[in-house]
Amino acid sequence: MNFDSPLESVKSDIAIEFENQKQAKIIYDAIVLEFETAPDYRSSMNLTLDESRILIRINAEDSTSFRASVNSAIKWIKLSLEINNLTI
Amino acid sequence: MNFDSPLESVKSDIAIEFENQKQAKIIYDAIVLEFETAPDYRSSMNLTLDESRILIRINAEDSTSFRASVNSAIKWIKLSLEINNLTI
Repeated sequence: MNFDSPLESVKSDIAIEFENQKQAKIIYDAIVLEFETAPDYRSSMNLTLDESRILIRINAEDSTSFRASVNSAIKWIKLSLEINNLTI
Repeated sequence: MNFDSPLESVKSDIAIEFENQKQAKIIYDAIVLEFETAPDYRSSMNLTLDESRILIRINAEDSTSFRASVNSAIKWIKLSLEINNLTI
């Protein structure tokens, strides 16, 4: 994306619904630190736990940083789910 | 993701803000058909134009199909922006 891009921002609210609150909390606890320690000046990510849902809010300046943030978030969640599946 | 996954669904509202309504409409018109003609039984995607914003709603059954949908949506938007930049 260059400076002439007519795209101003990309904002997203993602809700990931789990079977139950316990599962959501396990995954949330596993990934919350990754979100706090992954700074990116072109996008911000915010993670919250809401009962059996994990909510991810992403604000990005351009589509490239948005895609990077979404992919990173989903990869963490997928990895946590896979590890969790090995242990239950 | 296997059948034991505790993940029930991934839902997302994405708002892409453009400089002005005209730009948003150009990009919307360029990609709306792609969204209507890309069926995926594990996720649904919905595109709407709201003044200077394009809203994308994605409902997916799992994180893999969600990621595929997001990436596909963002790639279409990025491509349209790039082609648009060549012509203005």
